[in-house]
Amino acid sequence: MKYNISILMLMVLTSSMGQVQRIEPPFWWTGMKNPEIQVLVHGNQISDLQPEFTPEITIKKIEKTENPNYLFITLDTKNLQPGSYKIKFKKGKRTISTMDYKFLERREGSADRKGFDSSDVIYLLMPDRFANGDPSNDSHPKTIELTNRSDQGGRHGGDIQGIIDHLDYIDELGATTLWSTPLTLDNEKTYSYHGYACSDLYQMDPRYGSNEDFIRLTEELHQRGMKHIMDYVPNHWGLSHWLIQDLPAQDWLHYWEGGENGFKRSNYIQTSQIDPYASTYDAKGCMDGWFDYTMPDMNESNPMVVNYLVQNAIWWIENANLDGMRVDTYPYNDKEGITEWVTRVMEEYPNLNIVGEIFMHETPHIAFWQKDSAIGAIQSFNSNLPSVMDFPLYDIFPEVFNQSEQNWGDGLFKVYDHLTLDFLYPNINNLLIMMGNHDVNRINQAFDGDLDKYKLAISLLATLRGIPQIYYGDEIGVLGEKSKGDGDIRRDFPGGWPDDPQNAFLESGRTENQKAYFNYSKKLLNWRKSKSVIHKGKTLHFSPTDNVYVYFRYFPDKPQETVMVVLNNSIKDQQVDMTRFKEGIQNHQNGKNAITGETVSLGTMLEIKAKSSLVLELN
Amino acid sequence: MKYNISILMLMVLTSSMGQVQRIEPPFWWTGMKNPEIQVLVHGNQISDLQPEFTPEITIKKIEKTENPNYLFITLDTKNLQPGSYKIKFKKGKRTISTMDYKFLERREGSADRKGFDSSDVIYLLMPDRFANGDPSNDSHPKTIELTNRSDQGGRHGGDIQGIIDHLDYIDELGATTLWSTPLTLDNEKTYSYHGYACSDLYQMDPRYGSNEDFIRLTEELHQRGMKHIMDYVPNHWGLSHWLIQDLPAQDWLHYWEGGENGFKRSNYIQTSQIDPYASTYDAKGCMDGWFDYTMPDMNESNPMVVNYLVQNAIWWIENANLDGMRVDTYPYNDKEGITEWVTRVMEEYPNLNIVGEIFMHETPHIAFWQKDSAIGAIQSFNSNLPSVMDFPLYDIFPEVFNQSEQNWGDGLFKVYDHLTLDFLYPNINNLLIMMGNHDVNRINQAFDGDLDKYKLAISLLATLRGIPQIYYGDEIGVLGEKSKGDGDIRRDFPGGWPDDPQNAFLESGRTENQKAYFNYSKKLLNWRKSKSVIHKGKTLHFSPTDNVYVYFRYFPDKPQETVMVVLNNSIKDQQVDMTRFKEGIQNHQNGKNAITGETVSLGTMLEIKAKSSLVLELN
Repeated sequence: MKYNISILMLMVLTSSMGQVQRIEPPFWWTGMKNPEIQVLVHGNQISDLQPEFTPEITIKKIEKTENPNYLFITLDTKNLQPGSYKIKFKKGKRTISTMDYKFLERREGSADRKGFDSSDVIYLLMPDRFANGDPSNDSHPKTIELTNRSDQGGRHGGDIQGIIDHLDYIDELGATTLWSTPLTLDNEKTYSYHGYACSDLYQMDPRYGSNEDFIRLTEELHQRGMKHIMDYVPNHWGLSHWLIQDLPAQDWLHYWEGGENGFKRSNYIQTSQIDPYASTYDAKGCMDGWFDYTMPDMNESNPMVVNYLVQNAIWWIENANLDGMRVDTYPYNDKEGITEWVTRVMEEYPNLNIVGEIFMHETPHIAFWQKDSAIGAIQSFNSNLPSVMDFPLYDIFPEVFNQSEQNWGDGLFKVYDHLTLDFLYPNINNLLIMMGNHDVNRINQAFDGDLDKYKLAISLLATLRGIPQIYYGDEIGVLGEKSKGDGDIRRDFPGGWPDDPQNAFLESGRTENQKAYFNYSKKLLNWRKSKSVIHKGKTLHFSPTDNVYVYFRYFPDKPQETVMVVLNNSIKDQQVDMTRFKEGIQNHQNGKNAITGETVSLGTMLEIKAKSSLVLELN
Repeated sequence: MKYNISILMLMVLTSSMGQVQRIEPPFWWTGMKNPEIQVLVHGNQISDLQPEFTPEITIKKIEKTENPNYLFITLDTKNLQPGSYKIKFKKGKRTISTMDYKFLERREGSADRKGFDSSDVIYLLMPDRFANGDPSNDSHPKTIELTNRSDQGGRHGGDIQGIIDHLDYIDELGATTLWSTPLTLDNEKTYSYHGYACSDLYQMDPRYGSNEDFIRLTEELHQRGMKHIMDYVPNHWGLSHWLIQDLPAQDWLHYWEGGENGFKRSNYIQTSQIDPYASTYDAKGCMDGWFDYTMPDMNESNPMVVNYLVQNAIWWIENANLDGMRVDTYPYNDKEGITEWVTRVMEEYPNLNIVGEIFMHETPHIAFWQKDSAIGAIQSFNSNLPSVMDFPLYDIFPEVFNQSEQNWGDGLFKVYDHLTLDFLYPNINNLLIMMGNHDVNRINQAFDGDLDKYKLAISLLATLRGIPQIYYGDEIGVLGEKSKGDGDIRRDFPGGWPDDPQNAFLESGRTENQKAYFNYSKKLLNWRKSKSVIHKGKTLHFSPTDNVYVYFRYFPDKPQETVMVVLNNSIKDQQVDMTRFKEGIQNHQNGKNAITGETVSLGTMLEIKAKSSLVLELN
């Protein structure tokens, strides 16, 4: 009896001790380009145990950290067949714990998947604010913050089902690609709706839906010929992330002595990552500072952290069959670490696209970060990041169309001048362009609800080089003022909630004003879909005169595809002399209006109404 | 009798016909790196004649143009001894005209002359408005416009002698290099004082003095250890230039059909020379358009024109023993032509310095034009131009010091942000920096005569990388508003004319206010002379906090030479925590104030008064 009791006690002890609480990635695939996978095992005092796999799998390395609750096991999966494999955790000869680890077969063509590109138009939405497709998950027993739609900074109940329910709307608009802000678990007490303080990098937030819902979202998109971009946040996690709560090692974080929980706010001096004059004080203060008290800054100088992020990103791409990623706060990451991250992800998927949020304001600073940049090369740096965002273009959008007077350097000159720096980019077509997103003043607010200005702006956006990105609601004229708080620029889409007084997702539910916004946008964006000259053509432009800006998108060897854009930013109707544009018009006689279908003559004078645009297919 | 008369008539005829009216260059040198020289001969029907040199000189080529009044004779001067050589102009066997052509011996070390550099401070003046040293040449029988000092746009009588008379003043200020706007003949009817519409590229304007006076100006500068920069204008000449009046060929000019005398105004779209999207219409409109009706635009796509300009520039450098050139309206020149020009001049003088006026507003656009630019290389372009001007820095000078509130991106942030683009320049030390020149609003006008702002501004200018340039009068607080016309920003220096009510050239003649401006400038610029760490040191800077900007100039291997600059742009006295600047301060304990000589401790807190600067030598 005594003996038996001892055994029992030992079993209880070891069971508690060797219990695997988490294993990450939760599963993996065979046939990856990189045959190595590092499995993180988390459990109480797990590092005292010895992991053992079936012989098909070679353990290349076992690493422990200062926290005994972790084991990092590097496996070699070369020639491994898909299947479920046993791992035993042993103490001496005794097996304390056994579990299954699965290696799945990859989808056909997975490695060669082609990412979003300039043939696409991206629709950016905030899932909590778009549509509530499943009111049953608005609050959830496993998460803290409850839904409170009356709170501007609270959760409103939108979810993955809500997105799926309205994919036809997005498709109808002419957007081809979805970018939702993060859907992974954010279990902070407040402001969890924005999702940028992740609590579990392998789990969707149950208030949005399950991992399976997320996969279903991709499937629904792909069924419509649309693409799916995941919003990825390597720079910082949420304070409530389980790994932060039980750090494998202190150096997983940028921990600031003296700060509460190691907190010190970033100085946001992103130039310090580029500028050779920058003090280490500033560079470190930017890169290692935290975005917010609830967002500990990850240390990507730690190879284990980078590896964790690489595998997690690949896991999502493979698991949810993604078409790309948008990476948050890109220059705030450790420069070398994030470069390794993107390099390894792109090595696994060489045709994927990844766009980094470089929220800076000088073109050279943005161009620095694009793969194969000559600007980066000045400092022997190559980011390997395929796509960047044209924030300097965003910066001028409100100004341009609010300046109806032609002053040197103002109005459309700003666009013209901006484009004169385009040659700094190694890949101008892989530039995300937008007139707004979830962090800035709503464009229609800046335009004070002036439809004509919006039409001009989206005509520009839809015909410039790059990948246009539409911020949900802009296409129906939604307002929102940054100065009133983020909530105001992240208003609920009208019709996304069952009890909404109107449903702007449906033609029948839209006001006349919303129809005017939507119909123009829809016409233009759908027209753009098949215009490879807009996606990949060259640009020829003429300096604005009398506040009229004319540019051409063209292929030198396919003149029949030329598109001519005329923007009249003045408040007067104008007759524009076409002889000046001979170099673009060449032998074309007429232009077909992409919106109205009407044909106009490209004879001597072209009439264009005040504050309006003409997008013309030349013939 | 009959026979004799015929001979006489023939002699008269041929004498008029073969008369050499001009020969350019008027003389040349032996021992040049490029042994070829193309001599332009101008005379009535001269092209009918056959030139013949003494046998020591080989005629390599004789070129004629559509105008029979020109001959272009290319000579090979290899192994030629200095001396005077005869040229005969023959018709058949008869010698119609004979003249001497001199080849001089070069000054010792002429080819290796070292140009101005970042150890210098340039003093820019407009000679007509600086000082009238010789009232006898105010008007001149050979030139049209008479002096009228009451006319803001008229000639005021300043001259080379006036400059020479006040070199001690410029020297005392601490400037080391003189740049006068053009002194060559400008014989336009009006506005001839600015000198940018040249009528004879080989002659000084007699109202300024003779060529010998100009050479004497260099000698006087060199005697003081100072340097001489000539303002050179290849892009356009004056309408009254003799070559324009009797063009060798129509294609010496950019001639616009339909324009009066071929005139069409430049569109000033300088980006069109860089921007790959630019239309030919805009590029040609910028490059080939005229600066003004009185300034025909030279065609540097014509090799003869470029050659004329190359030889003329070399002639002045060699003849007037110059230390460099400032080249007007650089991007308005034909890009290939001006590149050949600067390349050939620099080949002759590899250590010379030439600075181009690139009056643009985006750092990449300026950096594009500097020799060995990575930005230029993107377009397979290398300008070979050693030095460019930091106009984007100039652009922010007035704003920075007028913004006393610390708002993100405002005030000193503008300087900090500006410098984050410095890495785009291949040679940051060879960047001319200024807070004003003859084309823009006076800096002290922008500052509304606020001495404290001026002191801050010049402290910045004198301690940044690059070559500071002072615009005459700024050092004594002269005002002048661009909106009131160019004359207002080109006011006469007080004391430059015998009847002036005050003489600010002399300490005794200055008002208290002028003394305050001058003494601060003098102290700072003289201090700068010996500070090689300012001339060639690296920069380390810290992002502005509370409107205080701190930067260091240093040599990594010579910590004893470190200079620390603290600019307080706020309107409050501040205690600045030094611990943040450890990376710059290193083990230094104290800083010696470059202006007052006082020593301050670099302990925890440093006191700095509102709107003031501290330039500290660390020790």
